[in-house]
Amino acid sequence: MLFDNCRKDVKKTILPLGHGDPSVYPCFRTCIEAEDAVVNVLRSGKSNSYCPGAGILPARRAVADYLNRDLPNKLTPDDIFLTAGCNQGIELVFESLARPNANILLPRPGFPHYDARAVYSGLEIRKFDLLPDREWEIDLEGVEAVADENTVAIVVINPNNPCGNVYSHDHLHKVAETARKLGIMVITDEVYDQTIFGDNPFVPMAKFASIVPVLTLGGISKGWVVPGWKIGWIALNDPEGVFESTKVVQSIKQSLDITPDPSTIIQAALPEILEKVDKNFFAKKNKILKHNVDLVCDRLKDIPCVVCPKKPESCTYLLTKLELSLLDGIKDDIDFCVKLAREENLVFLPGEALGVKNWMRITIGVEAHMLEDALERLKGFCTRHTKKTDTETESPSSVENE
Amino acid sequence: MLFDNCRKDVKKTILPLGHGDPSVYPCFRTCIEAEDAVVNVLRSGKSNSYCPGAGILPARRAVADYLNRDLPNKLTPDDIFLTAGCNQGIELVFESLARPNANILLPRPGFPHYDARAVYSGLEIRKFDLLPDREWEIDLEGVEAVADENTVAIVVINPNNPCGNVYSHDHLHKVAETARKLGIMVITDEVYDQTIFGDNPFVPMAKFASIVPVLTLGGISKGWVVPGWKIGWIALNDPEGVFESTKVVQSIKQSLDITPDPSTIIQAALPEILEKVDKNFFAKKNKILKHNVDLVCDRLKDIPCVVCPKKPESCTYLLTKLELSLLDGIKDDIDFCVKLAREENLVFLPGEALGVKNWMRITIGVEAHMLEDALERLKGFCTRHTKKTDTETESPSSVENE
Repeated sequence: MLFDNCRKDVKKTILPLGHGDPSVYPCFRTCIEAEDAVVNVLRSGKSNSYCPGAGILPARRAVADYLNRDLPNKLTPDDIFLTAGCNQGIELVFESLARPNANILLPRPGFPHYDARAVYSGLEIRKFDLLPDREWEIDLEGVEAVADENTVAIVVINPNNPCGNVYSHDHLHKVAETARKLGIMVITDEVYDQTIFGDNPFVPMAKFASIVPVLTLGGISKGWVVPGWKIGWIALNDPEGVFESTKVVQSIKQSLDITPDPSTIIQAALPEILEKVDKNFFAKKNKILKHNVDLVCDRLKDIPCVVCPKKPESCTYLLTKLELSLLDGIKDDIDFCVKLAREENLVFLPGEALGVKNWMRITIGVEAHMLEDALERLKGFCTRHTKKTDTETESPSSVENE
Repeated sequence: MLFDNCRKDVKKTILPLGHGDPSVYPCFRTCIEAEDAVVNVLRSGKSNSYCPGAGILPARRAVADYLNRDLPNKLTPDDIFLTAGCNQGIELVFESLARPNANILLPRPGFPHYDARAVYSGLEIRKFDLLPDREWEIDLEGVEAVADENTVAIVVINPNNPCGNVYSHDHLHKVAETARKLGIMVITDEVYDQTIFGDNPFVPMAKFASIVPVLTLGGISKGWVVPGWKIGWIALNDPEGVFESTKVVQSIKQSLDITPDPSTIIQAALPEILEKVDKNFFAKKNKILKHNVDLVCDRLKDIPCVVCPKKPESCTYLLTKLELSLLDGIKDDIDFCVKLAREENLVFLPGEALGVKNWMRITIGVEAHMLEDALERLKGFCTRHTKKTDTETESPSSVENE
């Protein structure tokens, strides 16, 4: 939609910073070890066949080992189900939770795929807020206020897409206690666990599985920058066996038998990918993202109407609040983004798409020069549309031609 | 289930000839050109990213070109949708056809995934017969008898799994005329189009798209023996635009946006896979299958209670009728297969699973020595269980100990 507003006569390249897929940029190319792993599997000729619905055992074992490094309650391969990307994990889990009148708690701002999948599964959506003035922590009082006896689960995205924060051990502990009090499970999306460039360390939600059953969604798409390889996982952290007794496991297994599997060649490569990865690869990737975030935050200092309340320390987005009162003739975030696309061939995502009106999301998983260019254009756009105070003498037309 | 009946004390290796995945056997290894194509894509580092729901354009164009070689009404890339294997194609198409009271015509014997997917999509299943005494042709009178005003489509599997026949031009023409008369579309599953080893040439159903709209399901899983690569396609052969006006296209596109995509690396390799394949690869594969079919049919001459009414000329199965009246104490096909597994560690698929009681399916997509061994065991089993006529003098116990 926004791209339709970009125009040839603007004579600027189109800068697509609305959606994010760093893998298209050479600076974010995946590590050679991951490529080698898949090539080795292909050349063996031994993994061209169908696979069991849950995934092949060596891959499930490798995922369990990968996750167990940080967990007190160890996972077994039977606790792991491979999915064709993390989004299929959401689909399978939501399908397994669907029952008449059930509702699910989703974060606002959030990742729209969760909303779409809840609707498809017939789960009523109830939103709780992430609080920008408290470093995007979950509004736990709000969670308790919207939950009721038909609530089945709360979704916790950590590291958080799109806010870019990483929850502390203490906060996650409180989330677990709240979920336990409400009698609901926690679904945690940790696909960005290897995309962290701030000071707060990543703490897996499953550390609190003795308090509340935790269903973890993960994958290599973000960490290894290979979303097109289409492999992810569901991990059941459930020492009390709640997922078993509530038939969640059974339902997931049934769905896995009739839904598309991740490619067997990628499954067979997964052990080598997870075990052999060069830590320098993550460090290099995260350094670029940190540089990009610093660059954007620095430039935003000169753009008072676009405010980033908390500098991201993870993921590949930067969420900003639009101070529309400083602007002339801009109705809301969609209006802002449409005019920005039309006047500058620059595309950002309106917060509306993430459930937060008058916010805007900037993708930082791109090449730095694109952000330099984008922020320059954004500054020009905002300057042109800034409300004139009485003391200013410039005429609008002279500003327009700057 | 049947495997649970196999026993260690039988002291024979378990021969799994119930389900078929030739790709696990070295003699059916895919061609080097296909492996090279994927390796080249991986080494380019350029196809690790997300893809559009319908698939990437070069891959859709390559599929259109591949299919157009045999078609009068040419397909464009916009008529092609890539799927994560052929089974996902069935899922998407059935979902697009679902509406209250709708029914769909499925062949008997058939491929059980169709039944499962129809149930999930809320489509009522109506079966028509494939006729063993007419070379497994479709019982077109039967089709007309079960169809009504709520029928939306007929599924035609050609080359036929599990019967192993290839429909003639004339017969498909009649199928098209029948579907037109009934006002329904044809869904044709042609995933075995490169697995033919008899005299009848393969004719794509889409040749008759000017008579009736044809939705073709295909893929490389069977032809190239790479089911684990998980890529297939839906092709809309529809010169009259019926799929557009009935919103089938729109529904498929919507589903594609939220369902798992085939891996982008396989998509990117698809043009090279489809264009560069060595014809000798298909010839070699089909020669092995032909040899296996001849071997089984030859051995069955000595086993009167297991009858193959038509020697397969395609696919990787051989469907046999059990003459239970010749046997003692065998109730039905399931009983036959359970006892066969228990006594011989030999697993075949009971026809019941395919909708045909007292038939049995033998997988021929295996190594020849396995079939030699299997048919020897089958012969022993049948001999032991053959009804004794009055003229025979052997006691049952001596037969048992042979």
